[in-house]
Amino acid sequence: MSQADSRAKQLAILKQRKQLSVEEYLSGIRAGHKGTLSRAITLVESHKKAHHEFSREVIEACLPYTGNSVRIGITGVPGVGKSTFIEAFGEYVVNQGHKLAVLAIDPSSGVSKGSILGDKTRMEKLSTRPEVFIRPSPSQGSLGGVANATRESILLCEAAGYDVILIETVGVGQSETLVHSMVDFFLLLMLSGAGDELQGIKRGIMEMADTIVINKADGDNVRKAKMARREYANAIHLFPPAPSGWTPQVQICSSVENSGIKEVWDTIDSYVNHTKNNGYFDKLRSSQAKQHMLETVESFLRDSFFNSPGMNGLLQETTGLVEEGKVDAYTAAKKLVEAHNSLNRE
Amino acid sequence: MSQADSRAKQLAILKQRKQLSVEEYLSGIRAGHKGTLSRAITLVESHKKAHHEFSREVIEACLPYTGNSVRIGITGVPGVGKSTFIEAFGEYVVNQGHKLAVLAIDPSSGVSKGSILGDKTRMEKLSTRPEVFIRPSPSQGSLGGVANATRESILLCEAAGYDVILIETVGVGQSETLVHSMVDFFLLLMLSGAGDELQGIKRGIMEMADTIVINKADGDNVRKAKMARREYANAIHLFPPAPSGWTPQVQICSSVENSGIKEVWDTIDSYVNHTKNNGYFDKLRSSQAKQHMLETVESFLRDSFFNSPGMNGLLQETTGLVEEGKVDAYTAAKKLVEAHNSLNRE
Repeated sequence: MSQADSRAKQLAILKQRKQLSVEEYLSGIRAGHKGTLSRAITLVESHKKAHHEFSREVIEACLPYTGNSVRIGITGVPGVGKSTFIEAFGEYVVNQGHKLAVLAIDPSSGVSKGSILGDKTRMEKLSTRPEVFIRPSPSQGSLGGVANATRESILLCEAAGYDVILIETVGVGQSETLVHSMVDFFLLLMLSGAGDELQGIKRGIMEMADTIVINKADGDNVRKAKMARREYANAIHLFPPAPSGWTPQVQICSSVENSGIKEVWDTIDSYVNHTKNNGYFDKLRSSQAKQHMLETVESFLRDSFFNSPGMNGLLQETTGLVEEGKVDAYTAAKKLVEAHNSLNRE
Repeated sequence: MSQADSRAKQLAILKQRKQLSVEEYLSGIRAGHKGTLSRAITLVESHKKAHHEFSREVIEACLPYTGNSVRIGITGVPGVGKSTFIEAFGEYVVNQGHKLAVLAIDPSSGVSKGSILGDKTRMEKLSTRPEVFIRPSPSQGSLGGVANATRESILLCEAAGYDVILIETVGVGQSETLVHSMVDFFLLLMLSGAGDELQGIKRGIMEMADTIVINKADGDNVRKAKMARREYANAIHLFPPAPSGWTPQVQICSSVENSGIKEVWDTIDSYVNHTKNNGYFDKLRSSQAKQHMLETVESFLRDSFFNSPGMNGLLQETTGLVEEGKVDAYTAAKKLVEAHNSLNRE
């Protein structure tokens, strides 16, 4: 089927909005239909309960086909050139014969209703390639909810055969920690000549990085970029050794001159080889999955407590007493939990 | 009776402290007996269930006498001179007619079994004054548990008439956020001439500060301290305005030369006046108490889930399947919570 045919078919499906069965989702995703993949991700992101429950079945069906990818987190403050970097890097990766999915988590999108990767003019070249799937950050929902949706989207993309998954985020919120908790490799994009202020990047982020890539090392900037590389390399040296046994790298590149891009991919490749050999790759994925399970349990427990219909009045009343300092916070919490437990027992 | 027997009996008698009733605790604390206050705090910190439940009654009894203090958080990396500062500052505060309690939260004490404020040689002068009560950080327990105990200890100290409460912590872990969540005013102690590395202080900490105090501004250091003051003042200017409507200050002081100490107290005094006038003081305390209640509810919910006897096998089995990638983390979490709920309903 030609690209035009496939697109026409997708459009037809979209127009009809025919309900797909789990089997149809699975076969569409496995066959690499971007439209079906998109629809599945839309289900995962949906706030409607029916959609969400149905999306669980799709994910369960896809699960045997997941895991065969390198999951790469990319962060850096606005202005560091993330889109141009992803464009150049993605181009290189695809030319090596890979299929690339680009997802995003944007901590600001919940507030601004905008989203990174949402701008159609970004990554123009990359987005037209058939081997590439680009999905903007969901534009609503809590950061935790968005992160959950992204975790599920990774699985769906893997089932669709994408073997390199980039997850982009802006390095200013809590989102880097979330992205770090779902990737194999974490890439921090920096600029030269802005080191004095750590460029707005929180200290902890540097310690998460498996490689720091200094972007815009072109023209007059090359010398400064090389100096910055030396400085960061010195700084990284002071960090405690990573549990992966991997020594974080510091690299320079130019997305516009296309220099240093191959080297970034080579670094990721070395990292994957290194951690697959020493067992850390699988160990990290296992512990991420376990952690995700535990956090999800906690969010369910919170939801069932705070949304339990019988609790509403007591919760409001007790909160009022605590706010006025008439009841101690700890005692109030204990009484609330006891009330909730006895409600459940009834 | 053998000598050994008699000795054992004597020891048992010595150990057998007379149990105080809730009323005896309350009247002892209200009368300002430091020994009774100490024993009450020991109950609060205890990991024994009976102690803990009894401590709730003591706190409830004290509650009507709490709240009349200024709660001040102090942080700064090791070496910044926190103890000498607290010694000089405490001396000044007490000379103004206040009663001072100094508590501590030490994120490292759980690991090292040491604790800040634990060193008897520290704050030698201050600790001998009758108007001062100093309590080291509990040397065991999770950071969350220690923070809970500190919150309760603040209440007990207030009931004992201490109207200035300092809570000290080391500015390297998660503990500053916890301390910040239980105080009215947050003081960050810094050194001059180490600004390039932000002195190991995480960026977020500076944004929490109601005043930054540059310590050791004495001798040759005065010029550098003044420069640092200008730099920090510029940096602070870039932060978004605080919800208190208060503009964070940057001050210099010398704990050994006793200069600038009065000014720090004056700043705290202005802050209290400012926030009591605009209503923020009470609003912050209410929202802190509410937040503490909600977090405690969550920790109870977690405990009851993960320690529920019927869940043990299923939890282990499911965790295994998730770690092996055979079940999706979200689906697993959902099944676990459903199993837990039906167990509770039985």
